[in-house]
Amino acid sequence: MNIRPATDADWTQMWRIFQAVVATGTTYAYAPDTREAEARPYWLTPGTQCFVADDEGQIVGMYRLTANRRDLGSHVANASFMVDPRHQGRRIGEALGRDCLREAKRAGFLAMQFNFVVSTNTGAVALWHKLGFEIVGTLPKAFQHRERGLVDAHVMYRFLDDVVV
Amino acid sequence: MNIRPATDADWTQMWRIFQAVVATGTTYAYAPDTREAEARPYWLTPGTQCFVADDEGQIVGMYRLTANRRDLGSHVANASFMVDPRHQGRRIGEALGRDCLREAKRAGFLAMQFNFVVSTNTGAVALWHKLGFEIVGTLPKAFQHRERGLVDAHVMYRFLDDVVV
Repeated sequence: MNIRPATDADWTQMWRIFQAVVATGTTYAYAPDTREAEARPYWLTPGTQCFVADDEGQIVGMYRLTANRRDLGSHVANASFMVDPRHQGRRIGEALGRDCLREAKRAGFLAMQFNFVVSTNTGAVALWHKLGFEIVGTLPKAFQHRERGLVDAHVMYRFLDDVVV
Repeated sequence: MNIRPATDADWTQMWRIFQAVVATGTTYAYAPDTREAEARPYWLTPGTQCFVADDEGQIVGMYRLTANRRDLGSHVANASFMVDPRHQGRRIGEALGRDCLREAKRAGFLAMQFNFVVSTNTGAVALWHKLGFEIVGTLPKAFQHRERGLVDAHVMYRFLDDVVV
């Protein structure tokens, strides 16, 4: 599996992953019926770096890396991740996360912030803890979970000092 | 002083306030040299409600109210406030804050979240505490303060159950 910058040619496969992930209604604020025209600029847009996990031509996951805020807050990165649900359990998310931390460090960011990690998404919370993130805040009932109703979301944060590029 | 919806005709005065506020480099991520074309859509754009404090034709403050996230997070509001520095000490921020809470409640939001309250902006932190917000998270060194270097920013949050419209 090769993690490399995304190209326009990857979008068809990325869009399928996006649809499969938001269909669950359990991890992202995007509604299950989000249109392609809204999803695409989230991933492929100037000012945002986008990378895909390429398994011999099949895209199995992806992440986007950007500044969390402009100007006086632009030293803190933000990133989002999606893995093809059919390929869960292969530690693709972990590989993408580690790659993303290195790319953020290379790009000169001092820290990385996740703004909205759904608290019931325990796999994600555990992964980000494993990769050095801490919960620095909890937003009560901020996410409308498809099955559980209103649940909390976490803000997670980590400095990048110790990331080896 | 009358708090009312902003109109396009208010923009010239709003832009002066925006410039005066971001010139300090102490409260907003916007750089002091932010261009008008970038500032205007932050305030006057579809999907965002914008209100001004009108003191006999003079605009002395303003706020914007919108959803903090789309779709499955759209029950939480976000708001931003600016007061003309020449009119500080008149409790204009407090009046705008109270008005904003009522507007958010009327619009059906369940909670309000401020994503980035600079920790050294003690006036703002105290005002939001006074209006019922709690610090639910702190982002370490997330703001490049013009005079103090990297300082923390707070995430503040409040439910709207008790707001009387």
